[in-house]
Amino acid sequence: MLARRFLSSAASLPPTIRQLLSSPPAPSAEAIHVNGWVKSIRKQKQVAFAVISDGSSEAGLQAVFKDVTLAKRCVGAPGKFYTYLRRQTYPMQKQALTVEYLRDHCHLRARTNEIGAMLRLRDTTTQVINNYFQTNGFVHIHTPIITSNDCEGAGETFRIVASSDSPSPSSSTTTQTTSVPPTTEGSPSEYFNHPAYLTVSSQLHLEAVASAISRVYTLSPCFRAERSQTSRHLAEFWMLEAEWAFTSSVEDLCAVVEGSLRSVLRAHLDSPDMAALHRGKPHGRRPELAALVDAPQPWARMSYTEAVAALEAHHTATGAFAFAPAWGRALQSEHERWLADVHVRGPVFVTDYPAGLKPFYMRANDDAAGVQGPTVACFDLLIPGLGELVGGSLREERLKLLEAAIERHELDKADYAWYMDLRKYGGAPHGGFGMGFERLISWVSGIESVRECVAMPRWAGRMLL
Amino acid sequence: MLARRFLSSAASLPPTIRQLLSSPPAPSAEAIHVNGWVKSIRKQKQVAFAVISDGSSEAGLQAVFKDVTLAKRCVGAPGKFYTYLRRQTYPMQKQALTVEYLRDHCHLRARTNEIGAMLRLRDTTTQVINNYFQTNGFVHIHTPIITSNDCEGAGETFRIVASSDSPSPSSSTTTQTTSVPPTTEGSPSEYFNHPAYLTVSSQLHLEAVASAISRVYTLSPCFRAERSQTSRHLAEFWMLEAEWAFTSSVEDLCAVVEGSLRSVLRAHLDSPDMAALHRGKPHGRRPELAALVDAPQPWARMSYTEAVAALEAHHTATGAFAFAPAWGRALQSEHERWLADVHVRGPVFVTDYPAGLKPFYMRANDDAAGVQGPTVACFDLLIPGLGELVGGSLREERLKLLEAAIERHELDKADYAWYMDLRKYGGAPHGGFGMGFERLISWVSGIESVRECVAMPRWAGRMLL
Repeated sequence: MLARRFLSSAASLPPTIRQLLSSPPAPSAEAIHVNGWVKSIRKQKQVAFAVISDGSSEAGLQAVFKDVTLAKRCVGAPGKFYTYLRRQTYPMQKQALTVEYLRDHCHLRARTNEIGAMLRLRDTTTQVINNYFQTNGFVHIHTPIITSNDCEGAGETFRIVASSDSPSPSSSTTTQTTSVPPTTEGSPSEYFNHPAYLTVSSQLHLEAVASAISRVYTLSPCFRAERSQTSRHLAEFWMLEAEWAFTSSVEDLCAVVEGSLRSVLRAHLDSPDMAALHRGKPHGRRPELAALVDAPQPWARMSYTEAVAALEAHHTATGAFAFAPAWGRALQSEHERWLADVHVRGPVFVTDYPAGLKPFYMRANDDAAGVQGPTVACFDLLIPGLGELVGGSLREERLKLLEAAIERHELDKADYAWYMDLRKYGGAPHGGFGMGFERLISWVSGIESVRECVAMPRWAGRMLL
Repeated sequence: MLARRFLSSAASLPPTIRQLLSSPPAPSAEAIHVNGWVKSIRKQKQVAFAVISDGSSEAGLQAVFKDVTLAKRCVGAPGKFYTYLRRQTYPMQKQALTVEYLRDHCHLRARTNEIGAMLRLRDTTTQVINNYFQTNGFVHIHTPIITSNDCEGAGETFRIVASSDSPSPSSSTTTQTTSVPPTTEGSPSEYFNHPAYLTVSSQLHLEAVASAISRVYTLSPCFRAERSQTSRHLAEFWMLEAEWAFTSSVEDLCAVVEGSLRSVLRAHLDSPDMAALHRGKPHGRRPELAALVDAPQPWARMSYTEAVAALEAHHTATGAFAFAPAWGRALQSEHERWLADVHVRGPVFVTDYPAGLKPFYMRANDDAAGVQGPTVACFDLLIPGLGELVGGSLREERLKLLEAAIERHELDKADYAWYMDLRKYGGAPHGGFGMGFERLISWVSGIESVRECVAMPRWAGRMLL
């Protein structure tokens, strides 16, 4: 009996409530042991009812007490959550908890219905993403978190010191590009012998692996020391990134992104966690999301040039924008919102931006995209009500053009010697993208702030536990 | 046609070579487009053969050139890897590359058979782990990487500063416990208003979530600024950690660990990547691993007290150990090796260590474990040839005992107020474990050093890219 349970990989644990609800036992089955907390109690004269939850689903099991005195052992203060096991109450009112109060108690907030549902939805989304990429032949890679790349000295990176080091003044200056080849001695107080940063993107690392294993992806933490306080930014966030070799069209990239997003939406359309998150809200988002899953045509694509033309026409007619749109200028949030929310009324891939607006590694378009200036083979996916969810591009695989771009962006060639090696030896046309995972959760769940889209959010001035 | 491909979640990408090998097309099928690099070429007078690889599997496709001149376009220098697309050679000799040479070229080393196979084996292992925990009702949680917990001031943590901050001398002292309640002002130069560290374990965070969602796990990066240079330690490593409520026996914990490991071993027994890693080695590890998968009995368990008795008897008879074993002393590596390699000749769970050897959060055993001193409800899993792979315990859920342990370990109660809250409100008996993911890969693959068990290893003095 002891030995038998080890032969099954679904080992020794009793069923969760979610498992019981999805495949209920036969009426003739033996008694089943269930663990959980008492979430609420309702007493009548002869009988009492309690909802038992183990957090595996929003729905609990209803326990019926034919002996009302037994239920009395569960009683806590009115209007509070109860716990059967300890008969103590949570410090959380059942209602009227503000988002801010819960952020201050993030060690307890997973106990609320909304955060609980979000965490399960996040788990499901992770599974769907993994299935999608594995089905399409991608290999998951654990890319490094600590990196020598300081994100082009942009100053929004976190630097790392070993606690036993005293960071010297000289090693804490970051205005210069500080990546040092491994043979050069750095400050002796530095654990790695040269400056170390938290990664802002796994892209360059994935490119290295994609030059051997042609399709790779990762879902990995990334970090930006941004000072801005918005509902779209976290200091620590998770990013889905994929890179693959042997692709030479932006449309290929968009197709993979759209396929992955349709998979995610499809998996959630009828999930109880989505229902829990949308309950009581005036407009269920199911019809909108279902239409995207079932759309017989690809989601909208338009070039940056087309987008700017539409924006200019609208601005000329209405003067709607604070920033005048013009070819060669970055799209502002108000522009992106108008494109997705009003002009397209749905997700839209905006492609082929001016080279001057984008990083050095994006592939130059051959056709020079008409008369207005050089463009690169890239896209941003804009989502109504959210803004940019995904950004991607073909990567410049032509060594000479890459070198020229590194020079044009005034980067230190020595820092990118390894990156140029990838082109020198066995290079191939390739591309990829990055998707902010909390923004994806925000879109799917309808939870507006990304701070409620992760278990324990970190942002400027705020990092609990 | 364009629209159709969007309706399938396996979207627009051609099959990988792995997909083709596992479900070969019918002879009558239309021509199939395949992408890859030329790994080797063999020419005869009338015909030439090339092995095409896309990195999705070690085995490539053999291309037959009936026109030998076509094959000539692939030729590079003899004894090198070739690439079809660019006709350039890799800077890697096919043979006789030292491990150290490859570590110095870690942007290219995924192109070697061994690292390629390891990365695919890592991917498969991740999938198996995810399947195992999901089947058993666990929810995957992304736990935070940046934390205010400095690991009890142990001095082996990495500290974080925003690049725009100048770390002040006072904020770089770490001998005191520096976690500051959120309302207290820290150094104004600190991005988060109080000191921030890279996590050494997700356990405490998982415990918070497990008090709401009763079964949770994570596979997450962890960090230790260790100065030791061993084949078992990395500065950045991945850890599988699980926590679950409503368990009150160490045997339950061991059963879940053993179940997950049997799943991993079973998945690899006949995998081509394992075969690639073991090829040419004198002793295939398959028989040893297969025996563990099929063992009708649970793997060995013994208490610390039993282990010390066996060690003492052996030491008295042979004087084999540099450190004399004795109850109350930590097990040394030589002791752990003897237990797993010689005494048990297999994996062994050693349970119920003396309280004085273990962290504050482990649950005190009620029975006082006989006469030799108080013990805690914990285990270490020792593996032959590897040492400790997993450590876990029940967590002290009794508030008074937890408070006493915090005092006994001379920790600041204020830092753990939130952790005690988990016990004050709706606490439940619970436990969990942590498994070093690179050590798992090392064990399964037979690759001795963990530096070859991750794409881009980081250790003291070494951090490339």
